[in-house]
Amino acid sequence: MKHITRADFIPKVESNLTKRFILGITMVTGFSLIIYGGPLTIMLMITLVQFKCFEEIMNLAYEAKKLPKESKLRRINIYFVLVGNYFFYGEVSKIHFKVFADTFATVRFLVSYHSFISFCAYLFGFIWFVTNVKKNELRKQFSLFFWTHFLILIIVVQASLLVNIVFEGLIWNVVPISLVVLNDIFAFIFGKLLGKTPLIKLSPKKTMEGYIFGAFGTVLMGLLLSQFLCQFDFFTCPIEYMNTSSGISMNTNCNSTYIFSPIDFYGIHSYPFVFHSLVISVFASIIAPFGGFCASGFKRSMKVKDFGDIIPGHGGMMDRNDCQFLMATFVHVYINTFIKNTNYNDINKIFQKLLYMNEESQLEFYYLLENHIRHNVNSSISF
Amino acid sequence: MKHITRADFIPKVESNLTKRFILGITMVTGFSLIIYGGPLTIMLMITLVQFKCFEEIMNLAYEAKKLPKESKLRRINIYFVLVGNYFFYGEVSKIHFKVFADTFATVRFLVSYHSFISFCAYLFGFIWFVTNVKKNELRKQFSLFFWTHFLILIIVVQASLLVNIVFEGLIWNVVPISLVVLNDIFAFIFGKLLGKTPLIKLSPKKTMEGYIFGAFGTVLMGLLLSQFLCQFDFFTCPIEYMNTSSGISMNTNCNSTYIFSPIDFYGIHSYPFVFHSLVISVFASIIAPFGGFCASGFKRSMKVKDFGDIIPGHGGMMDRNDCQFLMATFVHVYINTFIKNTNYNDINKIFQKLLYMNEESQLEFYYLLENHIRHNVNSSISF
Repeated sequence: MKHITRADFIPKVESNLTKRFILGITMVTGFSLIIYGGPLTIMLMITLVQFKCFEEIMNLAYEAKKLPKESKLRRINIYFVLVGNYFFYGEVSKIHFKVFADTFATVRFLVSYHSFISFCAYLFGFIWFVTNVKKNELRKQFSLFFWTHFLILIIVVQASLLVNIVFEGLIWNVVPISLVVLNDIFAFIFGKLLGKTPLIKLSPKKTMEGYIFGAFGTVLMGLLLSQFLCQFDFFTCPIEYMNTSSGISMNTNCNSTYIFSPIDFYGIHSYPFVFHSLVISVFASIIAPFGGFCASGFKRSMKVKDFGDIIPGHGGMMDRNDCQFLMATFVHVYINTFIKNTNYNDINKIFQKLLYMNEESQLEFYYLLENHIRHNVNSSISF
Repeated sequence: MKHITRADFIPKVESNLTKRFILGITMVTGFSLIIYGGPLTIMLMITLVQFKCFEEIMNLAYEAKKLPKESKLRRINIYFVLVGNYFFYGEVSKIHFKVFADTFATVRFLVSYHSFISFCAYLFGFIWFVTNVKKNELRKQFSLFFWTHFLILIIVVQASLLVNIVFEGLIWNVVPISLVVLNDIFAFIFGKLLGKTPLIKLSPKKTMEGYIFGAFGTVLMGLLLSQFLCQFDFFTCPIEYMNTSSGISMNTNCNSTYIFSPIDFYGIHSYPFVFHSLVISVFASIIAPFGGFCASGFKRSMKVKDFGDIIPGHGGMMDRNDCQFLMATFVHVYINTFIKNTNYNDINKIFQKLLYMNEESQLEFYYLLENHIRHNVNSSISF
């Protein structure tokens, strides 16, 4: 973590550019390998990045508040993060790893009592904190307590949403993450080439030209990338685990849903998903950068240049991922509002869920539905 | 808001006691009238208390950070709170006010796009904040930004859980709130009468004796109160709205569910709910007070005696409600884990999804289910 000095503001772009470029290529290769590794590898990556981001911001806070290394508060905060992860990741997994709950009694127990176990674990941490607050530095300790909660809200929750998105099909995760990265790169390149007009006070190196031309680049790349990825079942199939005779395995066949079925768009062979990717790339280039501006302002407020130094030339993990957070929530909300909420692919999924229930519940549901249809559905439809 | 001076620590218990007692009685009467007013009045009360608590803590923060009265940041923070309320209250209402969505197209639209609208509203506030941060006082502004998010997490979320609980039947709301208040009173009285051993460093006036004997008092009162309230449909019926010929009205008849059906417990005429209330009263007297200890420590860290002065002799709204927050989450989690069985929960969720589909899809689903039940469900179950 470097403190801002006058020297940092003298441009030393050239020496840095080579470093940045080489490491940029390395990161893209790494990301591709992780994608190739499949859903579990991606989830692992998200989790590791999340922990690193958390650590970087927490360390900034500890340094600002001058909290001693051996303080018990650090352990309590780590505990809170683990509980936060347990709760939010569990909320995600319990829907998707249903088949494990059917097979293992322990998993079934953990799923049934998930909120209760999480809340008890949180209470333990809360009481641990309250009984260990030292009288002499109350302000500092409460401030760090709030800080941890805030970070769980913005980092852990977003990471669990990203993990949740993976299950909808890798494409929903890979395209948004890539577009945010691409927009970062485009804005940087166009800013270097054409940049004149400053964009925002918080982040003085960003230029209007980088922002606007970066957006065009991102939208174009978004269309090409999604058009390309839509061809592969590997990217478009939702992740489902099923219980076969040989044990639990991933379902690798799927009937392509409407959004991944080929359509003819004014003579161009394409997919409805490409339209959705257009919305995502507009978000990635117009709105998501504000996450980065906010992070810039925050770093400035803490009087540091970077969140960390894990990636030479790029700063910390948080410096590379500051725009991913708004994006994660956006994609999650977008899928739930415009993709899942619509009729065409849902009847079968809902029916599958019902089949997991016991017979009494199925009958209860049947009567509920019959009653609803008798009273509300237009009688002109044959019944 | 009073700053701590030496005089504040000299006991002036007697003059205060009368004030406290009279106002205590007034508050109990007020609370009873609000309960008498029914679910909507209770929800209104929860919302007003929530806003007042929020204002009190925010004012402490503004004062500590010396934020000028006319600062734009105050307006931005109020905006965030409103968005938080819109989102969390909406999440609750959209399940329970289904009938309004059936009747009014606007409501249906708001429900279908609830998360999306809320997220867009949040983004607007986020961009408003980022574009208005002043360079000269970055640290202060980011700190207040975090503070607002933290308060939304602990105050708005908990208030929306309390509102959600109301729908399960007033008793689930009235008993926990009353038990927390009763425990406060008992701990205070027993502490005054028998208190010798200090309980916790954070809150030096609390005594071990008050804590322990208060717990016994609370458990006893909890049993009596819930045994009494279980007799009335007004308290035990879940709140449901239905569409009748004369418009939308509250469903006032309900078949008592298992937990409110009379049982014979070793010769005592009782209800299963009374057992649940025992768990709640143990929580109210053993765990919930830690919310209060935490609040005490926080006040001390901000160098104030009370959060506010809205209730003479009792301090601010937050001073009276600091133990209600853990309780709200506990009851919410408890109901979802132990009362609504998983199947019941799922049935409702699945049914909600189905209701948002068009009529053809609903019918298609109905026939699918009918067919399944005819062929697969055990014929010994009446069908």
